[in-house]
Amino acid sequence: MPTYQAPVADTLFVLNELLGIDRYNNLPRFSDASPDVVEAIIGEAGRFATEVFFPLNQSGDAEGCHRAADGSVRTPKGFKEAYAQFRDNGWGTISTDPEYGGQGLPHTLSAVVNEFLSSANMALSMYPGLTRGAIAAIETHGDVAQKARYLPKMIEGTWTGTMNLTEPHCGTDLGLLRTRATPKPGGSYAISGQKIFISAGEHDMAENIIHLVLARIDGAPAGTKGISLFIVPKFIVNEDGSAGARNGVTCGSIEEKMGIHGNATCVMNYDEATGYLIGEADKGLRAMFTMMNEARLGVGIQGLAISEIAYQNAVVYARERVQGRSLAGAKAPDKAADPIIVHPDVRRMLMTMRAINEAGRALVLWTALRGDLSHLASDEKEREAADDWMGLMTPVIKGVLTDKGFDNAVLAQQIFGGHGYVREWGMEQFVRDARIAQIYEGANGIQALDLVGRKLAQNGGRALQAFFKEVGTFCEENRHDETMAPLTKPLKKGLNDLQAATMWLMQNAMAKPDNAGAASTDYMHLFGLVALGYMWGRMVKVAQEKLSHGANGHSAFYENKLATARFFMDRLMPETAAHLARISSGADSMMTMNADAF
Amino acid sequence: MPTYQAPVADTLFVLNELLGIDRYNNLPRFSDASPDVVEAIIGEAGRFATEVFFPLNQSGDAEGCHRAADGSVRTPKGFKEAYAQFRDNGWGTISTDPEYGGQGLPHTLSAVVNEFLSSANMALSMYPGLTRGAIAAIETHGDVAQKARYLPKMIEGTWTGTMNLTEPHCGTDLGLLRTRATPKPGGSYAISGQKIFISAGEHDMAENIIHLVLARIDGAPAGTKGISLFIVPKFIVNEDGSAGARNGVTCGSIEEKMGIHGNATCVMNYDEATGYLIGEADKGLRAMFTMMNEARLGVGIQGLAISEIAYQNAVVYARERVQGRSLAGAKAPDKAADPIIVHPDVRRMLMTMRAINEAGRALVLWTALRGDLSHLASDEKEREAADDWMGLMTPVIKGVLTDKGFDNAVLAQQIFGGHGYVREWGMEQFVRDARIAQIYEGANGIQALDLVGRKLAQNGGRALQAFFKEVGTFCEENRHDETMAPLTKPLKKGLNDLQAATMWLMQNAMAKPDNAGAASTDYMHLFGLVALGYMWGRMVKVAQEKLSHGANGHSAFYENKLATARFFMDRLMPETAAHLARISSGADSMMTMNADAF
Repeated sequence: MPTYQAPVADTLFVLNELLGIDRYNNLPRFSDASPDVVEAIIGEAGRFATEVFFPLNQSGDAEGCHRAADGSVRTPKGFKEAYAQFRDNGWGTISTDPEYGGQGLPHTLSAVVNEFLSSANMALSMYPGLTRGAIAAIETHGDVAQKARYLPKMIEGTWTGTMNLTEPHCGTDLGLLRTRATPKPGGSYAISGQKIFISAGEHDMAENIIHLVLARIDGAPAGTKGISLFIVPKFIVNEDGSAGARNGVTCGSIEEKMGIHGNATCVMNYDEATGYLIGEADKGLRAMFTMMNEARLGVGIQGLAISEIAYQNAVVYARERVQGRSLAGAKAPDKAADPIIVHPDVRRMLMTMRAINEAGRALVLWTALRGDLSHLASDEKEREAADDWMGLMTPVIKGVLTDKGFDNAVLAQQIFGGHGYVREWGMEQFVRDARIAQIYEGANGIQALDLVGRKLAQNGGRALQAFFKEVGTFCEENRHDETMAPLTKPLKKGLNDLQAATMWLMQNAMAKPDNAGAASTDYMHLFGLVALGYMWGRMVKVAQEKLSHGANGHSAFYENKLATARFFMDRLMPETAAHLARISSGADSMMTMNADAF
Repeated sequence: MPTYQAPVADTLFVLNELLGIDRYNNLPRFSDASPDVVEAIIGEAGRFATEVFFPLNQSGDAEGCHRAADGSVRTPKGFKEAYAQFRDNGWGTISTDPEYGGQGLPHTLSAVVNEFLSSANMALSMYPGLTRGAIAAIETHGDVAQKARYLPKMIEGTWTGTMNLTEPHCGTDLGLLRTRATPKPGGSYAISGQKIFISAGEHDMAENIIHLVLARIDGAPAGTKGISLFIVPKFIVNEDGSAGARNGVTCGSIEEKMGIHGNATCVMNYDEATGYLIGEADKGLRAMFTMMNEARLGVGIQGLAISEIAYQNAVVYARERVQGRSLAGAKAPDKAADPIIVHPDVRRMLMTMRAINEAGRALVLWTALRGDLSHLASDEKEREAADDWMGLMTPVIKGVLTDKGFDNAVLAQQIFGGHGYVREWGMEQFVRDARIAQIYEGANGIQALDLVGRKLAQNGGRALQAFFKEVGTFCEENRHDETMAPLTKPLKKGLNDLQAATMWLMQNAMAKPDNAGAASTDYMHLFGLVALGYMWGRMVKVAQEKLSHGANGHSAFYENKLATARFFMDRLMPETAAHLARISSGADSMMTMNADAF
């Protein structure tokens, strides 16, 4: 049986010591997030994740969801009750609008809670996760009446939400979508079509499900410019706010998947379902994109979350399993063999996970904080800079943390040997669950294209230049410091590689766009290494400061930061040169062969 | 539904043009392997794999194996009949001893058949696969009576075999094993204990199952020096060769696993079962190790095999799925979108798989041929050199081709987007099946340690030096050739990195063995890149020669070799520098932290 303990101490280190969020207590939302409140919420979220969500993770995977002939869906045993506790405890309301019943705290805190819940039970956490996306859509694009009608019950969790984009023939390329919206008398629309891969599309946890659906109004232009966004409730909402007549939307089937079996991934059939336009007609895709940063950050968090729980269990096993002797001489001579954590190759795997998880957590919260500041900071320049960071880093976090999250789940499984391949130990579930995060919410290749094709050049490269300057300045300021120099030197080398790759793209991708496509995935991972390396630099800076002041009896915590940072630079950062070499080899060697010759 | 076509043309290219196996037609075994015979066998094996094994791959995964209360195991529907065809067609006999009914052809041909069968249905192919290992054990270590009693029926496939090493508390460290063997009157032993993870341990396909079991004779020394190897038949074999009384060995349960559901992975309980010592007492581990090269090569082939079928299906999908437009302008303007094979990032994934598969196949067969020559070559020096290559390359093939095989299955799945995560498309099964090959038959970390800790220094580094010389000479001889230079230059760079890493190990691992452990996995992959790169160099040399003589109307085949080799050098070879950097950072950064601090 796997175990899970929420990384509360590390999270508080990031929020309080690395980010110093109490600096922002003059801002709305942050003013209510005093250190005491933050610590209480995070501690309680960790307990809730461990005690309520986590015990259902393996059983939910084994049982899965079941659809009955009438289209209703039964979630695994215990999910309904756990979700009810989630709802009653208000975990869905942390950062939502107080006007509609939310607690109005920073989104940064929601990001923390999401990590814990996703570690504990990714499949279960997706039901409220999708609801958050739907809430954001209505908060941002709904009119006053729509907000009043849908938000209170969604925020309190009595109703859940979904996002309906994909159709059988189109996922990435939504311009191809065919779901139709026919105007009806009274201003609503009749929605008809089929959507697939709809997470939490149907289930037994909520009184109503509010579907947000992309469809094309009759006569609208072809392609992406003719797509509108609609609210399609499972039960039509009456004037008094109660759920009324059953709408023409049903779950046609649920997918048999590799993982996240506890989440119902539905084929949703819309048969002249009543829908309500949200936002402007034909601007639905733009409306969807404004929510995408948050959703993609959420998926990046899932990558981190699975990596964290996989790491924790690998550590337990590596300390308990005895097998072989240390190459450096027996470490447990009283036992038949040494625990496998003595073996450097096992350490290599553990340290890889740890080095990515801790820097990943820092990068996620650093970015979530920028997301809050992009709305709340008093200074316009600061809001702009925060928004720049958020836009630039979102595809990096989604793509890199989910790729690394999967890789780390595989490493953790490897430490278990044959036991890792067997279901009861739980490790193979982490691998299967982690895999989806690389695919949905824009496959990672799409993240890489978003970064290279859109984000780099946006506003004349303003966000990118600011990032280069921030990291470069940090390296420069710390390069003569004895503790910092061993870190800033490889970080600076990584930054140089990233800048060289950027320069190569500027010189080679304009005339030949395939060079950008050919570079994209390597560029994203190169970027990720520099961003994570920068987090290590900043974390060590804090740790060094604490250690020089005695560290309040927690010197081991800070010393471990130094050791892990050193590992990151020794073992992970060298990859930047390989990425640069690949990028600058260009597209030719992959585009030469005729498509028929494969 | 996935598809599969055996790569017959590429295999014949490797056997006939790259390896020129007809050069060896003066040797035993090879003298019967005329080009016609080879082509007929390979063509027929491809058809058999596609038509008989492959249609049961998805259904076998879905159904799995089921154990009844009496300990009997039912394999998935159709497996029994498909195995009967395998047996009746003599696919198990190709390279076994003619004295006991085998065809006595080179093992190199068996390796080809194994690849095809493992692609088509890895779980099913493991039943005869384990039998091959048991046959090899008896061929090598059995006495005349044992050979006569067991080999004929095992070779004809009426009986199957297993290998019983692992126990609940020991896998890698077999010195800990506890299964006891108590001498009985008449020279046999009573075997008692529990073995786990026994592939094909119990099933309904064969009239008898011959278990090869490691156990400790009462009073034998502790550790690895007190382990003996026993034959323990499911049914005791009568004097007349028929299967007699049921022996005291039963399947206690079968594991719920991540993949290879069609193969019964059994807990085997030995309760005073009658066993027969094979080979010398207390020398069982050594006996096991002499078969390990073949078994590990077989697992490396599984990595290649899954990578090949995953690649084939990804190509089909990438050509059929239309989504988005080429960055270089619409390629299929008559369609709503271009097929996704126009996108460089999709190409990157396809070419990565292709570049590893083709070089992997070459390396496997190059090595299998050395395995044959190590026994059959007329010159002792040639036998020695062949054996050196085989020993050196075995951990590389097992570790690298299974790691890459898994990575490639993941890439192929990624090309399918959300559809790759759904069972019906078959791609997620390849990922789940491929995963075990990194774990069993010695986890890949153990392969890396075998390479670094044993194989490098064996016979004063003779095998390694020969490899360096062979690759170095090839680079030197071809560096002024216009076609070859773009390949030999990066290959030489990779070789230099490998030699530098070797030098670093010589200088740093003697005094501090943890430096070897810390380097091992990176060293293995660095070695693999150079070995695969060398195969590309040799294949392009052949292709160039063919092209310069008109290529007999097959110029596209050879041109594609050049394009794929170029991709390998551009995109995969640059990783050698990162491996070297990691290796030479040493063990410190991973060993610093206290085990309790993780």
